Amino acid sequence: MIMRIGFIGLGQMGHAMAANLVEAGHEVTVWNRSPDKADALVERGATRAATPAEAAQGDVVMTMLADDAALEAVVYGDDGILGAPAVHVSHSTISVALAERLTADQDGAGGYVAAPVFGRPPAAAAAMLFVVAAGRDDLIARCGPALDAISQRVFRVGETPSAANLVKLSGNFMIMAAVEAMAEAMTLAEKGGVEPALLLEVLTGTLFNAPVYKTYGEMLVEQRFTPAGFAAPLGLKDMNLVDTAAGRLRTPMPLLGVVRDHLRAAIAQGGGDVDWSAVGAVVRRNAGL
Amino acid sequence: MIMRIGFIGLGQMGHAMAANLVEAGHEVTVWNRSPDKADALVERGATRAATPAEAAQGDVVMTMLADDAALEAVVYGDDGILGAPAVHVSHSTISVALAERLTADQDGAGGYVAAPVFGRPPAAAAAMLFVVAAGRDDLIARCGPALDAISQRVFRVGETPSAANLVKLSGNFMIMAAVEAMAEAMTLAEKGGVEPALLLEVLTGTLFNAPVYKTYGEMLVEQRFTPAGFAAPLGLKDMNLVDTAAGRLRTPMPLLGVVRDHLRAAIAQGGGDVDWSAVGAVVRRNAGL
Amino acid sequence: MIMRIGFIGLGQMGHAMAANLVEAGHEVTVWNRSPDKADALVERGATRAATPAEAAQGDVVMTMLADDAALEAVVYGDDGILGAPAVHVSHSTISVALAERLTADQDGAGGYVAAPVFGRPPAAAAAMLFVVAAGRDDLIARCGPALDAISQRVFRVGETPSAANLVKLSGNFMIMAAVEAMAEAMTLAEKGGVEPALLLEVLTGTLFNAPVYKTYGEMLVEQRFTPAGFAAPLGLKDMNLVDTAAGRLRTPMPLLGVVRDHLRAAIAQGGGDVDWSAVGAVVRRNAGL
Amino acid sequence: MIMRIGFIGLGQMGHAMAANLVEAGHEVTVWNRSPDKADALVERGATRAATPAEAAQGDVVMTMLADDAALEAVVYGDDGILGAPAVHVSHSTISVALAERLTADQDGAGGYVAAPVFGRPPAAAAAMLFVVAAGRDDLIARCGPALDAISQRVFRVGETPSAANLVKLSGNFMIMAAVEAMAEAMTLAEKGGVEPALLLEVLTGTLFNAPVYKTYGEMLVEQRFTPAGFAAPLGLKDMNLVDTAAGRLRTPMPLLGVVRDHLRAAIAQGGGDVDWSAVGAVVRRNAGL
Repeated sequence: MIMRIGFIGLGQMGHAMAANLVEAGHEVTVWNRSPDKADALVERGATRAATPAEAAQGDVVMTMLADDAALEAVVYGDDGILGAPAVHVSHSTISVALAERLTADQDGAGGYVAAPVFGRPPAAAAAMLFVVAAGRDDLIARCGPALDAISQRVFRVGETPSAANLVKLSGNFMIMAAVEAMAEAMTLAEKGGVEPALLLEVLTGTLFNAPVYKTYGEMLVEQRFTPAGFAAPLGLKDMNLVDTAAGRLRTPMPLLGVVRDHLRAAIAQGGGDVDWSAVGAVVRRNAGL
Repeated sequence: MIMRIGFIGLGQMGHAMAANLVEAGHEVTVWNRSPDKADALVERGATRAATPAEAAQGDVVMTMLADDAALEAVVYGDDGILGAPAVHVSHSTISVALAERLTADQDGAGGYVAAPVFGRPPAAAAAMLFVVAAGRDDLIARCGPALDAISQRVFRVGETPSAANLVKLSGNFMIMAAVEAMAEAMTLAEKGGVEPALLLEVLTGTLFNAPVYKTYGEMLVEQRFTPAGFAAPLGLKDMNLVDTAAGRLRTPMPLLGVVRDHLRAAIAQGGGDVDWSAVGAVVRRNAGL
Repeated sequence: MIMRIGFIGLGQMGHAMAANLVEAGHEVTVWNRSPDKADALVERGATRAATPAEAAQGDVVMTMLADDAALEAVVYGDDGILGAPAVHVSHSTISVALAERLTADQDGAGGYVAAPVFGRPPAAAAAMLFVVAAGRDDLIARCGPALDAISQRVFRVGETPSAANLVKLSGNFMIMAAVEAMAEAMTLAEKGGVEPALLLEVLTGTLFNAPVYKTYGEMLVEQRFTPAGFAAPLGLKDMNLVDTAAGRLRTPMPLLGVVRDHLRAAIAQGGGDVDWSAVGAVVRRNAGL
Repeated sequence: MIMRIGFIGLGQMGHAMAANLVEAGHEVTVWNRSPDKADALVERGATRAATPAEAAQGDVVMTMLADDAALEAVVYGDDGILGAPAVHVSHSTISVALAERLTADQDGAGGYVAAPVFGRPPAAAAAMLFVVAAGRDDLIARCGPALDAISQRVFRVGETPSAANLVKLSGNFMIMAAVEAMAEAMTLAEKGGVEPALLLEVLTGTLFNAPVYKTYGEMLVEQRFTPAGFAAPLGLKDMNLVDTAAGRLRTPMPLLGVVRDHLRAAIAQGGGDVDWSAVGAVVRRNAGL
């Protein structure tokens, strides 16, 4: 089924996602704050919208933006998508509080679905993202073809959109927790005369043979923290969103405290351009390496 | 090649390992503090030794004991294996310090190989353990057939035996870290209205599709902490061994601090019979659940 | 020198402070959201203002409010004090960010002085508060008689108002840190058979003979957490302000993480009415007491 | 009342304590592993013992040694004081476990009193130590004049000697906790543009006017960590004793975890000669200073 889809936010991730929608044969209208980011997509058949609102007149409008502020600007700003007839499918990693507000405010119009994604740019390009979707069943059903076109699998986590954001934030926390654990173990091993690469081989060859350990384990072994795949300030922003949610829900999370502190240290010591896995550099430095 | 193998320590793990050695056709001599634990193996063809030393007169003597004290008793006690002609292959999870001492003391005799294992009793029974081996190349080569008979894979981590113990301890720390991370994320999700089972499905379906998350994730979802697969006091003992190694090596490990505190709390609140994954109960209780 | 002083915010603290200004002979104009809180002061000679702005036409206007939102309402709301001719002397415990904003916005008008206070209601009643003041020298000089009338001592911490807020927040963090440390030590002692009261006697009789240990130590010994002198949610709010400042300044503060988690647990387990020293109950519970 | 007192362990602290006993008119017999440390005391009237046992034939024998191992050597080694007729008054900061063992082993002989002290060398020289004493009432009564001669005050914490060790260890933990709290607050302040010295002035001028804040606060302000008043490895040893006690008693102590990690980092980064307050350097480094 061909859908009329708006796509707002053409960064590295959003651009790849929109391209897959075009590729799948949908009628795609795109908007980006810097309009030149849309050029390549327009060449491939997408339509350029003059305003966010213009991109939200079809069946669904998908947004993929950097943070709460950027999404708020697109929704609540001049010519924003607030109250538009399209279902708002929100892929950004945003706060639980904003998700709740957007759900309420879009309720009388096209409706709101939270659909944050797991995956880095190569996965987005290959339409191999994982989507975590939450919202009214009828709305999610309507978005089905659009979500299928960008992902390898869609997880449903209920009818409350903000639940999907909580799951996404939890997942990012779990990644950081795994990185921190590996960093501590590798530093211990290194000081004890064991090559970190050997330790990683054992770990990923046994109980820890998951992508997260392979991807980040190699970065830690090579101490390769630039260029950033996911910059430490963005990682810290996400951990702060987890912290805010945990505060609202009165949930102590001591491991979260550890990784937030190490992200702060990574930025304080290494600048804002390092990858969020640079918590590994902090752990080593604390051990005198 | 048929080897003459002694096996000391016939608990749940050791018994299964010894049975696989018999099964593989080796000449196996067994010893256990409570002799009746050897009965079934003798029936299947093993020989019963009267003392630890008597089990250490062949090619290799393998030990699988609960802790430093139990292993010290078997090596340094009356009729112990100290100075025996067999290669001492030590599978127990022991301190780095004891590994160093055993290496030095067995050097002039049959030699010492550290070969701690990853895997729970079912894996031991199926000869599907992972072995992490360290020691002199000639010694490890000599033990090859014995190690093959109990495992699906042998990892080599250098010529210093204690390195294998450090790797084993690091692995156990990584397990606890993963459990703690899941416990915190699930508690946050639960308080936010997301079923922990749903969160687990997303996690293990995406970046965290490793055995450690599946095994322990289900225990956390079901809050099933008894009977213990690996009792919390044993888990705490291992984390204390990691802590001791980290102290000697001047390595700060804040995540280790978190899990040690939660293991203490799990035992203080739930008694010594709970599984080490009962840190999950502590995390929930701290959130008022 | 008699000054014309406005006072906004007549809670337990503010009421006592305003009373001391009246007592000292100043011409005091008061405003409170619930007007009846002003009755007693009017009886003693204060003038009732109809709006916040009306209270800000004299030499200085002092504000003592619960949090950022309450202060923002009084400044930026209808008939707020924004741009008033009086020097705004802000006693509330607020965020560093709001202090910076207020400083900029009041710069062209009467000017802004940050003057948070240390002390509980009895100290306020006795004019024995400690004031931590920061702002332009001429402005602070002008406020001198007003500050003297409410305090036993005024500390100067520079010309940047927000510096005073940072000092105040740091002080509150130090209090919580001392409470946490005592709670952990007392719990250890209690489980080891030492009366917490005995431990406290030794501590306060030796290196720790400071008010903070005496006041909070007794609450911990008696496990007396209600009624709250300073409620846990307010304490958590302050610790969150510290955390926000630490995040902006890229400063890891692991001890802060511990107390924030314990405050969350205290509220999750004991409700919002407990004193912030109820972190002591959390520590005991984690030890199985 | 003139007593016959043996004194074993003539380091900086012990020498000063023994000198005060001589000064008070007691008959003092001294022993030290390096005998020349006794010379000055012999000149002032003390008697030199040839063995530890020889120093334990009078009314009491006081020991002041570096750690468990040193005290064990003096008690259980050749010509040790085990079973001697004198009351053993043990001033060293030792483990709870060793205190329990010494109590049991000396019970049939002269008896055992734990009497650890608070105070640094200048306080010892001025007979201004604080003594924390625990043991049988009759034994403590007998030691009274000896304890009075070295201290400004004796605290009694019951009849179980190890209780005094627990109190002493708790006190040292509280010191480290206060140092850590100040280090975090000062680092935050410094990054926010507030002079650490100003912050310290406010803290010690208000709620924190206790010796521990003044002494250590100045060291932190000046970043003066050498020469060590109390070396970081000794501080870490004490924190490890607290940790061991906390483990036996199943008491989670997250703040203890923070300071142990920071002491490890201080030593890893700064070497073993820095003061234990060098945790302040670790905190600053983590903030990029």
